[in-house]
Amino acid sequence: MKKNAIVGQSGGPTSAINATLAGVVSGALEAPFIDKVYGALNGVEGILNERFVDIGAQLSEGDAMTILKQTPAAALGSCRKKLPKPDDEAGKEIYEKLFDFFARHNIGYFFYIGGNDSMDTVAKLSAYAKANGIEGISFVGVPKTIDNDLEGTSQTPGFGSAAKFIAATMQEILRDTAVYTVKAVTIVEIMGRDAGWLTASAALPRLISDVAPDYVYLPEVVFDLDSFYADIEKAFKKHPNVVIAVSEGVRFADGRYVGEGTQSGATDAFGHKYLQGTGKALETLVKEHFGCKVRSVELNLPQRCAAHLLSANDIDESFGAGKAAALNALTVSGCMICYERSDDPYAITYRAKDVSEIANKIRKVPAEFITAGGNNVTDACLAYLLPLIQGEYATIYQNGLPKHFTVKK
Amino acid sequence: MKKNAIVGQSGGPTSAINATLAGVVSGALEAPFIDKVYGALNGVEGILNERFVDIGAQLSEGDAMTILKQTPAAALGSCRKKLPKPDDEAGKEIYEKLFDFFARHNIGYFFYIGGNDSMDTVAKLSAYAKANGIEGISFVGVPKTIDNDLEGTSQTPGFGSAAKFIAATMQEILRDTAVYTVKAVTIVEIMGRDAGWLTASAALPRLISDVAPDYVYLPEVVFDLDSFYADIEKAFKKHPNVVIAVSEGVRFADGRYVGEGTQSGATDAFGHKYLQGTGKALETLVKEHFGCKVRSVELNLPQRCAAHLLSANDIDESFGAGKAAALNALTVSGCMICYERSDDPYAITYRAKDVSEIANKIRKVPAEFITAGGNNVTDACLAYLLPLIQGEYATIYQNGLPKHFTVKK
Repeated sequence: MKKNAIVGQSGGPTSAINATLAGVVSGALEAPFIDKVYGALNGVEGILNERFVDIGAQLSEGDAMTILKQTPAAALGSCRKKLPKPDDEAGKEIYEKLFDFFARHNIGYFFYIGGNDSMDTVAKLSAYAKANGIEGISFVGVPKTIDNDLEGTSQTPGFGSAAKFIAATMQEILRDTAVYTVKAVTIVEIMGRDAGWLTASAALPRLISDVAPDYVYLPEVVFDLDSFYADIEKAFKKHPNVVIAVSEGVRFADGRYVGEGTQSGATDAFGHKYLQGTGKALETLVKEHFGCKVRSVELNLPQRCAAHLLSANDIDESFGAGKAAALNALTVSGCMICYERSDDPYAITYRAKDVSEIANKIRKVPAEFITAGGNNVTDACLAYLLPLIQGEYATIYQNGLPKHFTVKK
Repeated sequence: MKKNAIVGQSGGPTSAINATLAGVVSGALEAPFIDKVYGALNGVEGILNERFVDIGAQLSEGDAMTILKQTPAAALGSCRKKLPKPDDEAGKEIYEKLFDFFARHNIGYFFYIGGNDSMDTVAKLSAYAKANGIEGISFVGVPKTIDNDLEGTSQTPGFGSAAKFIAATMQEILRDTAVYTVKAVTIVEIMGRDAGWLTASAALPRLISDVAPDYVYLPEVVFDLDSFYADIEKAFKKHPNVVIAVSEGVRFADGRYVGEGTQSGATDAFGHKYLQGTGKALETLVKEHFGCKVRSVELNLPQRCAAHLLSANDIDESFGAGKAAALNALTVSGCMICYERSDDPYAITYRAKDVSEIANKIRKVPAEFITAGGNNVTDACLAYLLPLIQGEYATIYQNGLPKHFTVKK
């Protein structure tokens, strides 16, 4: 007997999260065991508030599916809602509301596209169903995060496009800053609170082009101001324009974030500190120390939404991960769809892994990907990154701008 | 008798300044009256220091010319050197050195690609030659500035690509910020010290897409904090995510820059104040006033170097302007190559105008392009901007990144 599916998006948006949504819907429309395909608006919040659309129907019209694949940010809207523990008496009401929705709408398949915190939601819904003997509903996680910091998967959907944007932008900034002969330092601040994958990708021009940032500072390495000044001093001996890539998440030996000073210390719903001042903080310090021209560039939101420059590999794989989730929904409840990578030739296969082994863990850049000095990445790191930025997605334009899809609400 | 040509680039780099360089060199190689085509490294500084290359020879090899066209930032290097007044006794030595170089290297044609300040250099060299009876050398300016603020030309080379990047990025940021249901303000700070052309282009999605920034604040309009708060209040009644585009150059009624507080008040060689804090300053103010989530995004350097997203119209026209300069070099000394635009259908013709009428003037966004409330641009403004962002340049990639040209020095 066919049952309905519902899909939601959660956490910070990416340039590829809609390619995964397109994959889920495409697979669900094909799957013989799925009837209607609903889209929850703003993730679990939409389910709690009865806000959802028939996304299967919307994406069956005209070029909707194609355009959705190149649209950045969560088309269904997102949320940062953290569910209470399934065995917590105080949270009982929320679970009852969610499962009442599932029952009333004959939902047999729940797909959640998100990062670390979203997998926590999948794990909790699975655990609640199990603990309460609720059967006939699959909970499937599909990864999404530009941070590439999920356990169990060789890379995350969305990372490749972010890495391509960062590498291309770094290459352009390197050209731009090289035009003058005056001594100057340019500090490029890159996203990645706990893992340095995005910042590492700023070094990719070294492998491809004849320009490269002088140094790359990842959050995996303790940030030392004296070594930092010494690094810059050394680079000035080679050329007047020093360019540095630094993660927003670098910290001093005492654990303080370098960018902490300029922020109020606010935290998000998951208790993560909100950072936004690393580049600016270093700009001030370098200006004082060297007395030269210093500029900081925060790549900011475009890192996660610059869908005008997508990695074709990333979009194809993100779509594939979503489709694999839907087509295998009968057998992968409580799982996240992971990537398994092989090289020579590069290829990706999808494998479902128990989400409880993945949620709330962080995959950092390993030691062998960081140079001994701690101020750059190794060639092995670049070899890992290179295939992920390959392929130029053939974006469809309309009147000079990329065409985007909007969900009818 | 054939003479040699020398071409230089000056001022802030753009994504199209190398397309113009390619045009100048291409035209000079074709022109029957030009022999060798030299490139001055770092503008007039290169001439003063005898640093130059045979750019004609370098660009005649393989795909060099094609790749140069898609390479951002001044390939020959740039400078911000302001020449002394031609009749100033103290500056005599510099002019003598420059004209000695021209004589020794049999230079008959000097091309200078740059903005307002660079046209000042062309005007002064012409005036000096005239005043001192020096004949047989043409001084030709070719415009360049993302700011679109030069007099005498319907638009400036480089502006269209910057406008396309800003419009596309704004469209993406609008998608990104719309995913959550919590009240939030996003402030996007855009370049343009004195003229709001770049900031105006952030409104282009309104004409093309179903998203648009709520307000657009240009430096042509006095910035009033109370009206600004009232605008945001009004937008919150329509949706929780308010998105604002603001020029780095907006000022209060007393003339102070909104972003002045966060900068040291440093000025560049031309006496321009160095601004970089408008978005950040407004972020703090809005956070205090509304107590909601506020984020500022400074588009920063990518506005002038994001050559991975070029306007094909802009690149073709920028190349054309350079070529027109070279092919007409015999008759346009003391001139800048200007664009004359016709509509229905849109087309550009090139016309040489006396550089002294252009240098040191600023073309601002006219009143009819700004709404009565002073917080947005009119449809007439968008109609002016739209053709300039048309066409997707077919960028050549290499291993996942746009391929760039490097001058051999």
